[in-house]
Amino acid sequence: MADSPDPPPSRPTHRPSLRELEAARARIDGRAHRTPVLTSSTLDRLSMATLFFKCENFQRGGAFKFRGACNAVFGLSDEDAARGVATHSSGNHGQALALAARMRGVNAHIVMPENAPAAKRAAVLEYGGQITECAPTLEARETTLATVVAQTGATFVHPYDDTRIVAGQSTATRELLEDVADLDRIVAPVGGGGLLSGAVLSAHHFGRGVLVSGAEPKLADDARRGLKRGERLTPKPPKTIADGLRTALSPLTFGILRAADTAIDVVSEAQIVDATRLVWERMKIVIEPSAAVAIAVALTTAFAGERVGILVSGGNLDLDILPWQRPA
Amino acid sequence: MADSPDPPPSRPTHRPSLRELEAARARIDGRAHRTPVLTSSTLDRLSMATLFFKCENFQRGGAFKFRGACNAVFGLSDEDAARGVATHSSGNHGQALALAARMRGVNAHIVMPENAPAAKRAAVLEYGGQITECAPTLEARETTLATVVAQTGATFVHPYDDTRIVAGQSTATRELLEDVADLDRIVAPVGGGGLLSGAVLSAHHFGRGVLVSGAEPKLADDARRGLKRGERLTPKPPKTIADGLRTALSPLTFGILRAADTAIDVVSEAQIVDATRLVWERMKIVIEPSAAVAIAVALTTAFAGERVGILVSGGNLDLDILPWQRPA
Repeated sequence: MADSPDPPPSRPTHRPSLRELEAARARIDGRAHRTPVLTSSTLDRLSMATLFFKCENFQRGGAFKFRGACNAVFGLSDEDAARGVATHSSGNHGQALALAARMRGVNAHIVMPENAPAAKRAAVLEYGGQITECAPTLEARETTLATVVAQTGATFVHPYDDTRIVAGQSTATRELLEDVADLDRIVAPVGGGGLLSGAVLSAHHFGRGVLVSGAEPKLADDARRGLKRGERLTPKPPKTIADGLRTALSPLTFGILRAADTAIDVVSEAQIVDATRLVWERMKIVIEPSAAVAIAVALTTAFAGERVGILVSGGNLDLDILPWQRPA
Repeated sequence: MADSPDPPPSRPTHRPSLRELEAARARIDGRAHRTPVLTSSTLDRLSMATLFFKCENFQRGGAFKFRGACNAVFGLSDEDAARGVATHSSGNHGQALALAARMRGVNAHIVMPENAPAAKRAAVLEYGGQITECAPTLEARETTLATVVAQTGATFVHPYDDTRIVAGQSTATRELLEDVADLDRIVAPVGGGGLLSGAVLSAHHFGRGVLVSGAEPKLADDARRGLKRGERLTPKPPKTIADGLRTALSPLTFGILRAADTAIDVVSEAQIVDATRLVWERMKIVIEPSAAVAIAVALTTAFAGERVGILVSGGNLDLDILPWQRPA
């Protein structure tokens, strides 16, 4: 660190203010896609509700994650940006950060376990990210990240325990509120809680009383149980097919969801797979199982009679073996 | 026929006039979806062109076929409509006709071979169609259809050799021309030729010099060969994976395409499968292999430097086994 004039600032983890939400909105404008809102008479009939699908599967990088990454990367000073960004997520966040960094013309260092799937490595490289390998343990991951940050002066961007990320994700809900009048509810899947926390904040500031709730796999219902108990739970990653939802809430996202008394509904693995397939078949869009979780909740008719906005979180998945082709 | 006051009129098979195109447009307005036009920076890069995807996979019934069926059904007099409509196509056209008839509150008689796949039967029934079974031969199909028409007085609606159908399909191109300025070219896949004929007519009347070309599987290049030779070819249905393109041109569609001297490009089965998968992966939309044929042509960089509108014909396919999972 001797040659780094300013040590990289530790990341902001406070609840984003209205001003930070507005700044995020301005920052992603023209950089992220304003994704379309689709409807489906078939899914309306089956859910007994009126559903509005905010299609973040059409977002750059194939998932909402680009919003937060873009806000983080373009919010840096030129000096900080020049030293690059870094993260240890090799999933949608890592790819989104690599893409946002490339758009700003700076480096993205992505720490990945040496046994990471080839497809994930390829996606990060395709977006121009620089991979640093580590042993496949949590400890090695954090040590390696710290080393990368120390050596390069890059700014660490956490996938969800980060003010800039939550503010960025909030823009999906804000656009939905602008595009669809008189929503009764907005539903988002919950993994680390960034998307849902952003929804809670956007609804609070711009939503005129719209309800926000979360959706989780039964196999990964740590957010639901933790919010009920008033205590953040961090179980081992569960085995749900909704691989984007295996992470636990962070202190930041848990705090936002708890303060809003956010309810979470859960669905089974079979319901997730069925909802994924139904959306492919009837809406002709490719969504990942994590995105189907909120739709699966709607299909239980839990929201009968309501006008419901659903955050369709992403469309990245392995097309070699589809969810309904895997052994149960 | 003794009790039928007016025998059903034989179907119109003349080239649709400007007035008929305008009437079709007015008739489908508010009944068919005005489908979105999507873009993809990845596919632009690979094709070296600027592509605009007119997403008829999002059309009612999952394919452009609803446009023609809707125009035919809603163009009938109340008296004719009351006697229903009939066809012998069990694919996208049969389903589209059933759906349009249900919207008008009249019967659709769909003649299907007794060995038709269960999924096709189910789709027709779901849209409210009435299935009449026949032996699995061309002769039985036509005899059975004639009997249904004689018994019910229903109006036969051919899937493409029909003025009303071609006029209906033309509306896809007209919308695309309205939504995207300064296109150099519009490309459509060619099976029976209804979609491409409609494109030729819309471009002629509304396109200000835009070029129109077709796309065919090499395995089913009867339109290309026939147009070159100046003679309509009607080979046995070929085995291409693009199952919507196994039919041959009709006298009506051959005449329209020949008069416009329409060029057709061809692609291999592997190119069709690769293009299908690429669109699913990168654009996150479900398209059928027939729709991928025009995209596969663009991916050969055949249209480098051009602004190209592509008619994405439909998104109906078997999700149990994907095109890239089938043995070659």
